[in-house]
Amino acid sequence: MTTWIGLDGDDTLWHSERHFVDAQRLYNELLSDYIDTSELHDRLMRTERRNLEIFGYGVKGFTLSLVETAIEMTDGSIGGADVQRIIDLGKEVLQHPVELLDGVAEGIDGLLTAGHRLVIITKGDLLHQETKVAQSGLADVVDGVEIVAEKDAQTYQNALGRHGIDSADFTMVGNSVRSDVLPVLEIGGRAIHIEYEYTWDHEVVSEHDRPEGYEVATSFADVPTLVSRE
Amino acid sequence: MTTWIGLDGDDTLWHSERHFVDAQRLYNELLSDYIDTSELHDRLMRTERRNLEIFGYGVKGFTLSLVETAIEMTDGSIGGADVQRIIDLGKEVLQHPVELLDGVAEGIDGLLTAGHRLVIITKGDLLHQETKVAQSGLADVVDGVEIVAEKDAQTYQNALGRHGIDSADFTMVGNSVRSDVLPVLEIGGRAIHIEYEYTWDHEVVSEHDRPEGYEVATSFADVPTLVSRE
Repeated sequence: MTTWIGLDGDDTLWHSERHFVDAQRLYNELLSDYIDTSELHDRLMRTERRNLEIFGYGVKGFTLSLVETAIEMTDGSIGGADVQRIIDLGKEVLQHPVELLDGVAEGIDGLLTAGHRLVIITKGDLLHQETKVAQSGLADVVDGVEIVAEKDAQTYQNALGRHGIDSADFTMVGNSVRSDVLPVLEIGGRAIHIEYEYTWDHEVVSEHDRPEGYEVATSFADVPTLVSRE
Repeated sequence: MTTWIGLDGDDTLWHSERHFVDAQRLYNELLSDYIDTSELHDRLMRTERRNLEIFGYGVKGFTLSLVETAIEMTDGSIGGADVQRIIDLGKEVLQHPVELLDGVAEGIDGLLTAGHRLVIITKGDLLHQETKVAQSGLADVVDGVEIVAEKDAQTYQNALGRHGIDSADFTMVGNSVRSDVLPVLEIGGRAIHIEYEYTWDHEVVSEHDRPEGYEVATSFADVPTLVSRE
């Protein structure tokens, strides 16, 4: 049983991907006035992937990729008012109120009652993530918030170092095998993967034998029990 | 004489604002095919100010504001190819190689020789700032890097807390009176203001009597002498 619990933010503590999915549905509708949108999703993915190393994660980069893909697929014929509508879709994602996932309030209570110390480790736009932490009501019950540009073994090592946490005493909880599980196992920590209804395509890890040292939960409410069993 | 020296990034350690100025010059040229651009700068400032609490600081928000202002000022008649050119201006700012300001290498050497400990405290897009720190070659000589969404008294207090720094033992060095000087004086630290050739309009502080506890330098090379004199 580890003392320190790392908590991913988007789609672990609060809903995020569903707001991107909603935005993309409206984006599809908007572009269907111009083009056959059957390839739109794939083209958007390609743009996002190309832009990831310049923009990093987060809604602002996503919005710029939406605009680029729309220009590209309409051969530049998209009108200015529609470009503004696309930017407004991004702004709606940025301003969407934070909604905790089912089971989170209960699971957090259980972890605190059991005496664990909590640290949120999340990636995305700095201001947006800070705003979500503040709105979540969780800022007062966690010992720290780490907003990182990428979740790899090095960033976890640095984040744990800043709080003086030994990786053997650390369990990460998150919805992404690639970002929340594998790099934590790599540095000698443990992990709990919570499956979420949507997984952003960039985060999908191809099927493989599940490595040792991580458990799977279907709800955050199960986390305290899984941690106590370790 | 304080032990810990905080270093602002953009326009203190490395050039930044000049890249925004270059981008805006090209933006003006591009839009002069559509409109009289005499009011363009003011309109862009207004858009940036309106978007600041949604986007925060950084190049991605700046780029989205460039696009919005262009759509607004051309009544939506701007073509898709030109919107893409505007996005590309933003990408150029994001990808511009880091150039240290004159006197920085020398000043950093002086501070290290005198036994000071250094921490970079900078604001902007997370990935972009991390990339600039890495490219600057300064990552190995500083004790920490804090990338923050806003530079107010609270964020300085938090940043100092994370490194166990007493504010009485801290001097901040930066080019912005509003972001690098006033909040640091407020928490009981000291500050050195280095004047930069351009000051982003949002950062201009109206003329007032200069408060106690801060010095002014014209070059980073003067910083070690000013710190030793405190």
